[in-house]
Amino acid sequence: MTEDTAIHPFDSAIALTSLETPHHYRGSSSPAYWNMVGPFGGTSAATALQAVMQHPERLGEPIALTVNYASALGEGPFTVEARPVRTNRSTQHWIVTISQPESDGPVVTTATVVTAVRRETWSSHDTPMPAVKPPADTIRLGHKFEVEWVNRYEMRPLAGLIPEAWDGGGEGSESRLWVRDNPPRPLDFPSLAALADVFFPRVWLRRATRVPAGTVSMTVHFHADSQQLTGCGSGYLLGQARAQNFCNGFFDQTAQLWSESGNLLATSSQIVYYKE
Amino acid sequence: MTEDTAIHPFDSAIALTSLETPHHYRGSSSPAYWNMVGPFGGTSAATALQAVMQHPERLGEPIALTVNYASALGEGPFTVEARPVRTNRSTQHWIVTISQPESDGPVVTTATVVTAVRRETWSSHDTPMPAVKPPADTIRLGHKFEVEWVNRYEMRPLAGLIPEAWDGGGEGSESRLWVRDNPPRPLDFPSLAALADVFFPRVWLRRATRVPAGTVSMTVHFHADSQQLTGCGSGYLLGQARAQNFCNGFFDQTAQLWSESGNLLATSSQIVYYKE
Repeated sequence: MTEDTAIHPFDSAIALTSLETPHHYRGSSSPAYWNMVGPFGGTSAATALQAVMQHPERLGEPIALTVNYASALGEGPFTVEARPVRTNRSTQHWIVTISQPESDGPVVTTATVVTAVRRETWSSHDTPMPAVKPPADTIRLGHKFEVEWVNRYEMRPLAGLIPEAWDGGGEGSESRLWVRDNPPRPLDFPSLAALADVFFPRVWLRRATRVPAGTVSMTVHFHADSQQLTGCGSGYLLGQARAQNFCNGFFDQTAQLWSESGNLLATSSQIVYYKE
Repeated sequence: MTEDTAIHPFDSAIALTSLETPHHYRGSSSPAYWNMVGPFGGTSAATALQAVMQHPERLGEPIALTVNYASALGEGPFTVEARPVRTNRSTQHWIVTISQPESDGPVVTTATVVTAVRRETWSSHDTPMPAVKPPADTIRLGHKFEVEWVNRYEMRPLAGLIPEAWDGGGEGSESRLWVRDNPPRPLDFPSLAALADVFFPRVWLRRATRVPAGTVSMTVHFHADSQQLTGCGSGYLLGQARAQNFCNGFFDQTAQLWSESGNLLATSSQIVYYKE
């Protein structure tokens, strides 16, 4: 890949072409972000958001995104429908579905998005970034992963690394890491949404047991505007995730993503299926 | 109200009649839960969920609910469409819209719901209930509130009470309270969803300034099944809420709801508009 001219794999993964039917877009699932049985859920979230971002009727910028993973996306083309169902003076509400291959094909993903025009107000960042070592003082996960999407991120763990021994000896569920796209790419809303899903299932860490697990629903709340994201460039984000509860097949996972300069850019919660 | 025979105001508020068109239901906004410019958002969340609960094709029980408040519900009838867009072996995905008055009328609320059949697995409650005084040792908020919905809940604050003086002197954003329906009502999924929205806007507490504020999107993750909820009877729940970030017109609010016996029943996050 020639960095100056080639398209970034993330941009390829979320690329959408407008179809003739209003609100409809065509995309194709990305081998570069392949997970075990389909693409990385973060790219599906980013794709749903991307449809809203490039919709000609969009008002404002993303405030909230909820993505529900109804089924694994398969290889090949899919259709996104992003419909603005309510447009107010400064907020807009969207329903998004991803179907495969056509819009009348089975639904694989549902999503809702809220966009809004922000105005400058009193603000307060009440969740300061934890004091951690700077990225340069951390060790980058180096080896090539079999699960392809992991190779699309530069990860520098600080705490709560994936267990080295699957010995059932886990205790906590909190992880911290520096993370950014690989190769580096300027931050925007779709990539921030994908980064909210970059944490491996908390149940693996908590139990040091690798049970089958998969996200069922993820919500991202955005706390920054596009100007602030642009200001992050292709720098690292500090990601933190933990579970609050594991019960009969489903656990939750809350997450925070700060810019390297310490601004909380997004918070997230997801509910994840696990077996056994 | 005669307790033995009369319908509970919450059941009236979320009562839905099936319409001839499949997936469509008719309800009516409840004066008993009136907020400032429409009914309490908790009842709208509960209504969206109730449509799924009474749908003949429902599989399993609620796992995740996201409700987006596109506009205040007005007085009078509304139409709910609850459509199962994907049914898997053990999970089901729903898109719900509330329109007023008819289904082709303006959309006032969008929602997605995931239901699932739970199976017994390894479980761990990693967010223990904070050590607090039992409900009997707390003081019930006693006076009659002008905002009618507040009178539909029995609230026993423990910490982070609504400021007595709006003097701009706020610091933290965390509240804890014992809470249940008023009059008491056996807990179920719709009432649990409504209880997730029972916390007043964190910005009021944080700033001790009563700026206009309203929930834009709320997500609830359910950590209990109907049997566990039934086991709570009409007892108190311990509710806890705090904000992580306030930025240019929007803040978030995370919440936990435990049973009186200490089981984490639901976790929630919402993003809230505020002015100034």
